[in-house]
Amino acid sequence: MSALPPIADIDLRRATLCQLLHWLASGRVQSGRLAEVYLQAIERINPRLNAYVQLSSALTVEQAHGAEHRRRDGVIGRLDGIPIALKDNFDIAGWPTHAGLPGPGVLAEHDAHVVARLRASGAVLLGKTNMDEGALGAITHNPHYGATHNPHRRGYTAGGSSGGAAAAVAAGLAVAAIGSDSLGSIRIPASYCGVFALKPTQGEISTRGMVPAARRLDAVGLLARSVDDLTVLLQVMAGYDAEDPRSRRRRVALSPPDWEPGKLRCGVLPNLPALGVQPEVVDVFEAALAKLDRELGECRTVDFDDWHFARARRAGFLLMEAEMIGTFATQLADPEHPVSPPFRRLLDYAARKTASDYANADRVLDAATLKMRRLFAQIDVLVMPTTPQGAFPLDGPVPDTQGDLTSFASLAGCPAVSIPMGTLPNGLPIGMQLVGARGSDLRLLELAAVWSATLDAAPEYPVVRDDA
Amino acid sequence: MSALPPIADIDLRRATLCQLLHWLASGRVQSGRLAEVYLQAIERINPRLNAYVQLSSALTVEQAHGAEHRRRDGVIGRLDGIPIALKDNFDIAGWPTHAGLPGPGVLAEHDAHVVARLRASGAVLLGKTNMDEGALGAITHNPHYGATHNPHRRGYTAGGSSGGAAAAVAAGLAVAAIGSDSLGSIRIPASYCGVFALKPTQGEISTRGMVPAARRLDAVGLLARSVDDLTVLLQVMAGYDAEDPRSRRRRVALSPPDWEPGKLRCGVLPNLPALGVQPEVVDVFEAALAKLDRELGECRTVDFDDWHFARARRAGFLLMEAEMIGTFATQLADPEHPVSPPFRRLLDYAARKTASDYANADRVLDAATLKMRRLFAQIDVLVMPTTPQGAFPLDGPVPDTQGDLTSFASLAGCPAVSIPMGTLPNGLPIGMQLVGARGSDLRLLELAAVWSATLDAAPEYPVVRDDA
Repeated sequence: MSALPPIADIDLRRATLCQLLHWLASGRVQSGRLAEVYLQAIERINPRLNAYVQLSSALTVEQAHGAEHRRRDGVIGRLDGIPIALKDNFDIAGWPTHAGLPGPGVLAEHDAHVVARLRASGAVLLGKTNMDEGALGAITHNPHYGATHNPHRRGYTAGGSSGGAAAAVAAGLAVAAIGSDSLGSIRIPASYCGVFALKPTQGEISTRGMVPAARRLDAVGLLARSVDDLTVLLQVMAGYDAEDPRSRRRRVALSPPDWEPGKLRCGVLPNLPALGVQPEVVDVFEAALAKLDRELGECRTVDFDDWHFARARRAGFLLMEAEMIGTFATQLADPEHPVSPPFRRLLDYAARKTASDYANADRVLDAATLKMRRLFAQIDVLVMPTTPQGAFPLDGPVPDTQGDLTSFASLAGCPAVSIPMGTLPNGLPIGMQLVGARGSDLRLLELAAVWSATLDAAPEYPVVRDDA
Repeated sequence: MSALPPIADIDLRRATLCQLLHWLASGRVQSGRLAEVYLQAIERINPRLNAYVQLSSALTVEQAHGAEHRRRDGVIGRLDGIPIALKDNFDIAGWPTHAGLPGPGVLAEHDAHVVARLRASGAVLLGKTNMDEGALGAITHNPHYGATHNPHRRGYTAGGSSGGAAAAVAAGLAVAAIGSDSLGSIRIPASYCGVFALKPTQGEISTRGMVPAARRLDAVGLLARSVDDLTVLLQVMAGYDAEDPRSRRRRVALSPPDWEPGKLRCGVLPNLPALGVQPEVVDVFEAALAKLDRELGECRTVDFDDWHFARARRAGFLLMEAEMIGTFATQLADPEHPVSPPFRRLLDYAARKTASDYANADRVLDAATLKMRRLFAQIDVLVMPTTPQGAFPLDGPVPDTQGDLTSFASLAGCPAVSIPMGTLPNGLPIGMQLVGARGSDLRLLELAAVWSATLDAAPEYPVVRDDA
């Protein structure tokens, strides 16, 4: 072992979580050095990327040394020594939670459920990442904390609302990240930044200690550099939490079902351009499907005429905005730290909506649930581009269709995985989304692992180099 | 067998569902005669009781003869030949559904899920029963269809909103009845009328084809003359329905868990009078607990200081009223058949509530869910009077606390059983409520069966005699 050369810093920042676990286990790297490499990279690169908004290198170093001690003692957790980033809408005891809003934030008394799980598994917390104000948006151009840049191209959006988290993973500033996803908030930045994302089945990971956006839609989301990494993270995070009213007794199978690629029933959307998907994205998607031909099994076009993407998007946003009036009541009333005018306008818009409007929007979710149940009686997996477009310039117009392809899995509570599927003509990545029936998370991840091996479309991480 | 005397009409109307199944199986009565006895009793008694608002004796007779044929052929369903009543907020294909509103009603194209289950089990439909306007109330003093009288005392309320259903069962005008319960709508009339009721775990029986009140609270409720009857009905009705967005894969155990009475952990509320429970009801309840002493096991007072009954009630009503603005949009806009001024006032009140108010009310349900989870980590069953008072005069004031003790099981999605526990000084019955953790329906029913055998407090049915 000692004959092997030490692993270069850049390779530690490029490696997957599973690779790092292997190197840590075989002693080729210690968690102290691993944390140091990541902290140094953050110090160098974050000022121009703006992925992190809160750091605590003392805590990071302390946790990393704790991991070293545990490994010497032979008593380690599933993620022992792995440096992980956390979106700034999760509570870390003793830290302020901002959720992208201005002001001092809310000092957290307790760890969020996922933070407790991370600590228990021995993971090392790097810091908290940038997001859209109140998670209400998909560009991470935050009026109080600045824009997070796309690691592939400065001046372009990283997507959102978990843009800082996705950028950190893509740029080699975190091995993996925990974000939130209510209508697409981890899948959209994963698509734009060229990383892997899982939004699990609703209720599968406890949202306790996560700032609520819309409780019926809120999910903890996972971001990583490979599908296998997502699977490990899901195993650490998932489970019943009696203190989360939406948490349910575990119903995701512990092992994926057997499947024969040739017998897979795969559904695709008809007429993507009519749904607002840009022609370049359609081209990349069709090339990817052609490459996956042998794995797709029986591929059928599903009926989406009555899906009403725009209506679904509006329904989801109304739920979020109406709930945020209550969630952020203190911040909205703070004259010292005013929220941005656009954010206030969105909430003012919701304030004029009636209780009956809310009930009607909530019924759109019931309709989506039924639609998805009927669909997954006929197919095993639904495949589409994750987003109708790739990353766009931060100073240009913001398309309002960003969440159209991600929102339905949210409305119906279904799991969804995003994997890189190719490169757009402008050189930026774009993701493919796999959606499955509730509880089919592990099957989706298995499919995604096979497909992403065939597509081989993940960029080489880190995409922001030290010399960039 | 032929040597046994025929069973008297009055005994056919007095018998439990299980007793009738036995008599039908042994040939002591045929379903044709059984239906005839019930139809004749309805014809005689319903004009002064007003339990039924829609009858179709031709259909009843046809179904009863179909049951006779099936029995001759030896191919029968679980409820074959049993005459059952249905609240008028469930669809029967080809019948109008009124839900207590004026006008021609909504002609149903399809059977509600429970109606399809009843038909498939061979049950015989007697007709549709009276209810509060839009199920928004608990007195069944309907401005369009008249008041249902309490079978124990004319001029007194039968409770509501499933008042017609409970009165029919108590008066021997139906063997059992299917109602709905969103905040107590079958348990309250069961308490006032001296019959048995089950509101199952949320999602356990499909609500497809039931007019929604508040989707998150709505449950199909069962009314019968014994606990065993409720168990049979639950077995016929329960199960996953992919077309009901709130339906869940069956999680109620098929058989109840073993229990030792001495080891039961039984929770009771502190200071019932402070919660608005009338002194006479407290006396009956305490006498019942004393009688149950050996079956109660370890009995502990639970902490209910932070339950805020009135706030919970208001939250539940806001959800119902806000949803009804959408549900009844057509009827509300019909100038020919105006809804009652009080009903319109309630919905107008909700129309002034904001989407944020709705979200905040919905959070009260999340809080109730957590409260109940914490409670049922410490106890097996929560016991209390079903209602703070017994039936009151139809022409007197209406207490606003009627649903206070029933609403929490609804808000938290927990199962609840009501059994007769004794007689008030004025001679009217009053019920005891058993509430359990989600999914504990069969255990609750088992406890309720033992307890009601000990209490022996069910009145002799029918409580309205032919000569009354």
